[in-house]
Amino acid sequence: MEQRVSLVTLGVADLARARRFYEGLGWQVGMAVDDEVVFFQLNGLILSLYPRAALARDAGVLDAGGFAGITLAHNVRSEPEVDAVLSEAARAGGRVVKPASRAAWGGYSGYFADPDGHLWEVARNPGFPIDAQGNTRLG
Amino acid sequence: MEQRVSLVTLGVADLARARRFYEGLGWQVGMAVDDEVVFFQLNGLILSLYPRAALARDAGVLDAGGFAGITLAHNVRSEPEVDAVLSEAARAGGRVVKPASRAAWGGYSGYFADPDGHLWEVARNPGFPIDAQGNTRLG
Repeated sequence: MEQRVSLVTLGVADLARARRFYEGLGWQVGMAVDDEVVFFQLNGLILSLYPRAALARDAGVLDAGGFAGITLAHNVRSEPEVDAVLSEAARAGGRVVKPASRAAWGGYSGYFADPDGHLWEVARNPGFPIDAQGNTRLG
Repeated sequence: MEQRVSLVTLGVADLARARRFYEGLGWQVGMAVDDEVVFFQLNGLILSLYPRAALARDAGVLDAGGFAGITLAHNVRSEPEVDAVLSEAARAGGRVVKPASRAAWGGYSGYFADPDGHLWEVARNPGFPIDAQGNTRLG
């Protein structure tokens, strides 16, 4: 697994309120799907705001006390690499909480938890190119 | 507040176990202080592993159900900028959970929470330079 992060996703109770807050910091939205998700391009990675309940569902976990409401994502360049990174995480002592599957947004993704339960999505997203330095950009 | 993130800090129950896991993914530690903190240089930002109880303490919050166990950090280039960003976050609808103060590690830092309680540290850390592109590097 390359030593990089592609997205940080913050689970939010009210997407419009969260968006207003970050825009109030002077941030500019890079891409948004109404009522679904808001993306901000940061330095080589993306911050996304996503409804918290949907985020837990996407990760295949219950939001019943143990869910942090934040996930990290590690995007890769091919679908086989998604499976390979999930296997690598399992071998290293992590737990695959959601095996990779086709995503509604057109990519391929799964999740692992590190030994403390921190959730990493591993994804191939053809819409978010990864450059030679490993930085991820909104397409 | 510039549109970037400097660190992602994962609160961990067992620092040695967490370090072994990430090293097991093939990651190389960039800097570590025994039994205190482990830093990995990522693409323009730093991932740190830090004992969860100490992380809650550092942020000035209780780890009693509402603490995600993850914080983001936004490092800036001067101490006045720390205060300015915290004020800006408060004006935008965030909550300053810890006003800026001198840190044991030699810098100056405070924390705000976004409307969903996600914690951002705002810090001036003279040991972690910020380049012209806004990327943060282990010194």
